[in-house]
Amino acid sequence: MGVFADRLVAAMQGNSSLLCIGLDVDPALAPPSLVGREGWIERFALGIVEATRDLVCAYKPNLAFFEALGLDGYHGLRAILDGLPRDVPTIGDAKRGDVGSTAAAYARALFDVWGFDAATVNPYLGWDALEPFAAYSDRGVLVLCKTSNPGSGDLQDLPTRVGETTMPLYEAVARRAVSEDLHGNLGLVVGATYPAQLARVRSLAPQLPILVPGVGAQHGDLEASTRAGLDESGGGIIVNASRGVLYASTGEDWQTSARAAALKLRDRLEAASGGRKGASGRPAAG
Amino acid sequence: MGVFADRLVAAMQGNSSLLCIGLDVDPALAPPSLVGREGWIERFALGIVEATRDLVCAYKPNLAFFEALGLDGYHGLRAILDGLPRDVPTIGDAKRGDVGSTAAAYARALFDVWGFDAATVNPYLGWDALEPFAAYSDRGVLVLCKTSNPGSGDLQDLPTRVGETTMPLYEAVARRAVSEDLHGNLGLVVGATYPAQLARVRSLAPQLPILVPGVGAQHGDLEASTRAGLDESGGGIIVNASRGVLYASTGEDWQTSARAAALKLRDRLEAASGGRKGASGRPAAG
Repeated sequence: MGVFADRLVAAMQGNSSLLCIGLDVDPALAPPSLVGREGWIERFALGIVEATRDLVCAYKPNLAFFEALGLDGYHGLRAILDGLPRDVPTIGDAKRGDVGSTAAAYARALFDVWGFDAATVNPYLGWDALEPFAAYSDRGVLVLCKTSNPGSGDLQDLPTRVGETTMPLYEAVARRAVSEDLHGNLGLVVGATYPAQLARVRSLAPQLPILVPGVGAQHGDLEASTRAGLDESGGGIIVNASRGVLYASTGEDWQTSARAAALKLRDRLEAASGGRKGASGRPAAG
Repeated sequence: MGVFADRLVAAMQGNSSLLCIGLDVDPALAPPSLVGREGWIERFALGIVEATRDLVCAYKPNLAFFEALGLDGYHGLRAILDGLPRDVPTIGDAKRGDVGSTAAAYARALFDVWGFDAATVNPYLGWDALEPFAAYSDRGVLVLCKTSNPGSGDLQDLPTRVGETTMPLYEAVARRAVSEDLHGNLGLVVGATYPAQLARVRSLAPQLPILVPGVGAQHGDLEASTRAGLDESGGGIIVNASRGVLYASTGEDWQTSARAAALKLRDRLEAASGGRKGASGRPAAG
């Protein structure tokens, strides 16, 4: 993953953490004392960051929540990205995918305009549609593989023939991500709600970073998915929680409660993983 | 397609047109006399609309191009949507797809905040991820099926087993869209670059509207794809051109040149389709 991987591993080491916090600002869930006040979007998100920045390996704003807030949301996201600490990498959870010149416009938006260190992308349109993202070799490109939702199997589990072999579609995506990783900056997304599939993907893609959402409100199995997803270095997974941290309390103690929730998740991840063995995201020797 | 279909058919009838113009504002291609000036994004797009509004059945802004312009792009898109004529439906080409509550946030963004009459969505995450869009029963939800890009077959053409039958993945998507059309507002997206696959999709989904991009700069076969995609009423397809119309000229004559390009496409579509037979988008009797 090049530059992104280096930044990620540095944050994982520095904060002893595989935890990523999803900055999904939702006015229906955020502290009522903040919602609607001037600049509340960035005040809330950066308040969460202030309370957790020594506990995480990455922050992951999901663009959907900002888009749902209209122009205020975009201005808020800009202020959040400008206010984030430089030593923690950012993942733009956008799940974009489009044809040729349009994919290039999305890549410019995510990497040049917003300035994310990595972004999630959707593989349905094919690999030429992902190349404009991957061409940003200093950024990470995390390809949806097996998503955390109950209906993810509708397409992703369909038995698919690739050459002489039949495999679920998500496996075909994982294998292809390995063979198409021309710039050394691809990764995968596999939900914590499917630890067996996560283990399978890790076996197919031993060296790719895997973003693992779904441990909080979606009730993915944190311990099982951590063990399933670790690479040989004891890292290589970015385990995301959003609502369970952000909305741990909506009272005056929202920051301390978010910190407590993040700390608990961080420590559970450290216990499940046994800490990082190597200094890089690639497998350590021995 | 309910309310969206009714609006679409009214525009198809009123303007005798199956042509949709993609409002993909690109500063690298737009008239240099406009680019960069205060409000140029909406001036250009609404100038194209002014020159073509009696020749189209829909306008389709692709969000990628506005996102690539940063906050100016979002403000421009807002001004464009506020300035569009009410009698021509809008399609938000967003290709969104995400899990549960996040998909709901995208649906709010596209339908409540931006106010599009329809949107394009990506089926990779499964049907529960599309339901928050489809629940807006007065809007159209156009599901990516076989996209226009050269690499679309990477996933979409993979032989896939559904029950006892093996079919390309895009066929599985088309069949599922028909069976999952609970709110009567689903449609499909099939590129004009694949007329044989478009004919197949039409046979599987005789009553769903199909958005057909790729007739302009992507060199899809307009006549073949029109014939392949028509429903029994002689309509049911929304044929999109973007760059070929918007950037027909970058000189002082950009509006008249865009109109001439749109008129030519409109007339070719009418000739290929033989005009609409019924008053609705559903098959006419006889």
